[in-house]
Amino acid sequence: MTTEGPAGLPMTVPATDLPDRVRIHEVGPRDGLQNEKTTVPTEVKAEFIRRLAAAGLGTVEATSFVHPKWVPQLADAEQLFPQVKDLSAKAVRLPVLVPNERGLDRALALGAHEVAVFASATESFAKANLNRTVDESLAMFAPVVARAKEAGLRVRGYVSMCFGDPWEGAVPLHQVARVCTALRAMGCDELSLGDTIGVATPGHVLELLSLLNEEGVPTPALAVHFHDTYGQALANAYAALEHGVTVFDASAGGLGGCPYAKSATGNLATEDLVWMLRGLGIETGVDLAALTATSVWMADHLGRPSPSRTVRALSRKES
Amino acid sequence: MTTEGPAGLPMTVPATDLPDRVRIHEVGPRDGLQNEKTTVPTEVKAEFIRRLAAAGLGTVEATSFVHPKWVPQLADAEQLFPQVKDLSAKAVRLPVLVPNERGLDRALALGAHEVAVFASATESFAKANLNRTVDESLAMFAPVVARAKEAGLRVRGYVSMCFGDPWEGAVPLHQVARVCTALRAMGCDELSLGDTIGVATPGHVLELLSLLNEEGVPTPALAVHFHDTYGQALANAYAALEHGVTVFDASAGGLGGCPYAKSATGNLATEDLVWMLRGLGIETGVDLAALTATSVWMADHLGRPSPSRTVRALSRKES
Repeated sequence: MTTEGPAGLPMTVPATDLPDRVRIHEVGPRDGLQNEKTTVPTEVKAEFIRRLAAAGLGTVEATSFVHPKWVPQLADAEQLFPQVKDLSAKAVRLPVLVPNERGLDRALALGAHEVAVFASATESFAKANLNRTVDESLAMFAPVVARAKEAGLRVRGYVSMCFGDPWEGAVPLHQVARVCTALRAMGCDELSLGDTIGVATPGHVLELLSLLNEEGVPTPALAVHFHDTYGQALANAYAALEHGVTVFDASAGGLGGCPYAKSATGNLATEDLVWMLRGLGIETGVDLAALTATSVWMADHLGRPSPSRTVRALSRKES
Repeated sequence: MTTEGPAGLPMTVPATDLPDRVRIHEVGPRDGLQNEKTTVPTEVKAEFIRRLAAAGLGTVEATSFVHPKWVPQLADAEQLFPQVKDLSAKAVRLPVLVPNERGLDRALALGAHEVAVFASATESFAKANLNRTVDESLAMFAPVVARAKEAGLRVRGYVSMCFGDPWEGAVPLHQVARVCTALRAMGCDELSLGDTIGVATPGHVLELLSLLNEEGVPTPALAVHFHDTYGQALANAYAALEHGVTVFDASAGGLGGCPYAKSATGNLATEDLVWMLRGLGIETGVDLAALTATSVWMADHLGRPSPSRTVRALSRKES
């Protein structure tokens, strides 16, 4: 099998006024694997992270220090992190999710350089995911962010359900902005705007980005995290790019929810994003053939084909 | 099963400077079914076309008057067309593909109001698909277009391989423009720019559209026809929308090539396009729930799930 695409394709034709370079925040090992039914052995996860880094991904979210009871797929965080930590000496950023101070303690003990907290824009999801109100969850994060910053760590704040909520439907933009500005006030360096159920469309994305700018959150502090549940992820990414966003969350091979299952979440596939960015002449540092080969290798471990269209297209050549 | 989405979603948030309304040129019954392995009974095709029209699609490409030897899936064009022709009295446009003068004769005999010819931007595909050079195929189309126009028909010119070719790789833009201007000079009312292998990215789309404008083809005479082979179709559609394109080809349920097969072509799914347009507040006249129900019904006939992400997401609710 080769994962090289047709020679000379995509043709590189830049569009005007787009960034020259973007950073991909790879979430496959964390957001991807935590939503897969198959539990992957620790050594395979470590190899996955190493392969992603070798394919040129400079930021790979490695795992989550959440209580194993809630996310059994990532119960091996303590074993996994030391197996990949040396990558950070090679300038690969390895953020980890920390749900609370206990999680932060575990991450600090292992020498993590970068952590993320996971907030919700809606009451329903805060209740479902954190068993707290939005304000209670923000109060829980405040000391996590403060202590992480004191320890010299970089801190990312995830904001989920920014564009729609399965229980509440439409989510008012000012409600999203309130959570975002609260996380920024705590000290979060970067906010990742999550379309957790994949319902956003480009105008909605642009409106939220503009509102956040007006509320004092500059574009360089914003990342976008799209899901492909309704096939909108890449169009939304393109709209965000036009707004000037330079940090894009994506999951290698589209890991993170089988498109056939009811629980499907469908992360934007890193390969589909890289194909577009390559065509636009925007630098990512990623070797698409090596990344695709990595996703095919992981799909074999999970026993099902990758939902990424680019992975399927590239890996079926001469297979 | 319901095919209604989450209440109030997608939120409608227009973007600036986009068209208020677009026309979807539905290609499922022709481009979709001709690429499906299963041969669908004529009555089912007729019912499919009726359901698509009832869901609000004002243009439904009905069939192809190509020789049955080449496209056995559409060998029933003579039987099918009369079964749906009454829809045109209800203002539903029913274009049909005509490969040559013999095909045009058949379409005229049945009272078709609108025909399409199918050209190629590359020599390799002209040879593979038409067994002619590009110039020979244009010479073949000239009398078809002239006679159709004389008979008062509307004529569309498809141009395939506009953004890449599986044999030739990159396709020079001026080569595409040459075929487009030749088809316009013959009298084609509308050109459909086909990304037959799905490799285009937004900058490439914008560059081709601008070049065609410079060469004298106005945007209202242009339609775009994207395939989702690399997951790029909707992002490209959004870019085309920003350029001012108002005619979009799409296939109900993404019919037209199983994403798991080597031969996958993967038309842009009409539902995924409609979801985006609905979010952007752009009028299409389409009832998304009715359209999705139609695609689910057709997927049952074909014995496999729709590849459209929107169809999957909407049809698994409460199913």
